[in-house]
Amino acid sequence: MTKSREIRLKSRPTGMPVADNFELATVELPPPTAGHVQVRNHWMTVDPYMRPRMNDEKSYIPPFALGAAMGGGAIGEVTISNDPALKAGDLVQSFLGWREGFNAPANQVQKLETHGLPPEAFLGAAGMPGLTAYVGLLHIAGLKDGDVVFVSGAAGAVGSMVCQIAKLKGHKVIASAGGAAKVAFLKELGVDAAIDYKATSDLSGALAKAAPDGIDVYFDNVGGDHLEAAIANAKTFARFAICGMIGQYNVTERPSGPRNMFMIVTKSLRLQGFILSNYMNLRADFDRDLAAWYAAGKIKSRETVFRGIEQAPNAFLGLFKGENTGKMLVKL
Amino acid sequence: MTKSREIRLKSRPTGMPVADNFELATVELPPPTAGHVQVRNHWMTVDPYMRPRMNDEKSYIPPFALGAAMGGGAIGEVTISNDPALKAGDLVQSFLGWREGFNAPANQVQKLETHGLPPEAFLGAAGMPGLTAYVGLLHIAGLKDGDVVFVSGAAGAVGSMVCQIAKLKGHKVIASAGGAAKVAFLKELGVDAAIDYKATSDLSGALAKAAPDGIDVYFDNVGGDHLEAAIANAKTFARFAICGMIGQYNVTERPSGPRNMFMIVTKSLRLQGFILSNYMNLRADFDRDLAAWYAAGKIKSRETVFRGIEQAPNAFLGLFKGENTGKMLVKL
Repeated sequence: MTKSREIRLKSRPTGMPVADNFELATVELPPPTAGHVQVRNHWMTVDPYMRPRMNDEKSYIPPFALGAAMGGGAIGEVTISNDPALKAGDLVQSFLGWREGFNAPANQVQKLETHGLPPEAFLGAAGMPGLTAYVGLLHIAGLKDGDVVFVSGAAGAVGSMVCQIAKLKGHKVIASAGGAAKVAFLKELGVDAAIDYKATSDLSGALAKAAPDGIDVYFDNVGGDHLEAAIANAKTFARFAICGMIGQYNVTERPSGPRNMFMIVTKSLRLQGFILSNYMNLRADFDRDLAAWYAAGKIKSRETVFRGIEQAPNAFLGLFKGENTGKMLVKL
Repeated sequence: MTKSREIRLKSRPTGMPVADNFELATVELPPPTAGHVQVRNHWMTVDPYMRPRMNDEKSYIPPFALGAAMGGGAIGEVTISNDPALKAGDLVQSFLGWREGFNAPANQVQKLETHGLPPEAFLGAAGMPGLTAYVGLLHIAGLKDGDVVFVSGAAGAVGSMVCQIAKLKGHKVIASAGGAAKVAFLKELGVDAAIDYKATSDLSGALAKAAPDGIDVYFDNVGGDHLEAAIANAKTFARFAICGMIGQYNVTERPSGPRNMFMIVTKSLRLQGFILSNYMNLRADFDRDLAAWYAAGKIKSRETVFRGIEQAPNAFLGLFKGENTGKMLVKL
């Protein structure tokens, strides 16, 4: 009998989550029954989208259940297989969340072919965050030649891939993040201008300075002032891929929207939200392009790593404090 | 020598315009020179979009100039022609604004073929407002079979055509307007549910009751609370045609946007603004469809008419007080 520790949702947060909303529990994993495998996770991911899932609200994905382990992506290794499709030692990807190990039907995990990449890349640049950047930029915003691109949350897992994909395609990129270390990372990524929003009292003015003729595409990860600044600086027919609004996930009162909404009319703007799971048909294109970019040495990825399942809540809370540059991961 | 009276922009308003922002002036019209015509206007239009043009702001259309006659659509009759393309008695459409008569190059006016409709229809149902409804609903929102449609400002010139086009295409239509008389008009138009927003303190709740499964398309003429209610009641993948925000044209402080912007992400919404002048390629389709609908007796139009050029400012101000049911016109 093997033990596994896991992080459960103990109580629903009001505003910013606190340590007490989480609970560390230990479970026993019996040998897997027929058709099942036992997996030992090596890496797990924490992502901003998990915060809204902690609320008891109807949305595009069911809320996390109280008393159950938090869900989410993880990469691990099959330790015992009772199914012919997988064998001990196989690397697998799963969506079963914040736990050191688990038993599951073999068809609930996906065998991972790393093609020479580090396994944890498949939780970041080569995984959902990278695909999110790809879909939002190319499909939702409809990136086309000559577009000037603005991206917020640019030093995060999704944002840093938005920067790189747009630069690889030859675009001028203006990127916003908070703090000097992140701005330095953005410059490593080759962006044309990096805005430290924490160091400016006039975000819209800073964007206007970086893009004097305006922006064609905005990739929104944060909402709020950034969205307002993007609208203010948008060119006619600009397209916005609305991916997330991390600035709003922990508010206790519903935040007001941008004060310049009427410019959606006067500038003929298109704002479009998207949820990645509706665009998995683009996965093969992304995998092909990403493999080529990696092979050419053109993808830089950065991770901020916490160690140990007991640190998962801190890693998660760190997302909302801006503690991560690049992908926030937990090494198990 | 003929006299013509015109309304000029005397001063730029702050907030709601007042009578003193306008000036009635009389000009002499000499006989038209070669290539010019003299026109006596019979009808002129006042429209909400003229309010932002009174501000000294860069936008999709230049601001009205101080001391000059206000611009806008009008329908009149050629009284003297000094150009072979037009003759006295020809009905013409122009965009030269709030004046009883004018001289202009013949190519600045368009000869109007009424096809049996009253001439003033070409300032309303058969003109720009009708085409705006058509473009926004069919092209911007991409109306498709089974869509449930919500429209605000529904008793206005654009809104009443949105209601009718959507009903003609077999859709469930929920329409919002202010006051019992407008609601009665909406019912004449055959909408499935009419919301008197002035009589409810819970617009979002009223919309939820009228569309328990949510809305697929929102045609926005007013912005503000209506936009927020539409977002709250939108189905996944709903499309919004953002046409105008009359509720915001007279504010002196920039109004906050909807408090539920994050639902743009969670519901995968698309909000798209548009300016009619970019879609004039759809004019021929509209003219063809409209002629067929009129011929079948399927278009109801309603006008609210002020008489005399000196009443044009009152007609215009009436738009913002909800005084018009259907198209607001001035008979000259």
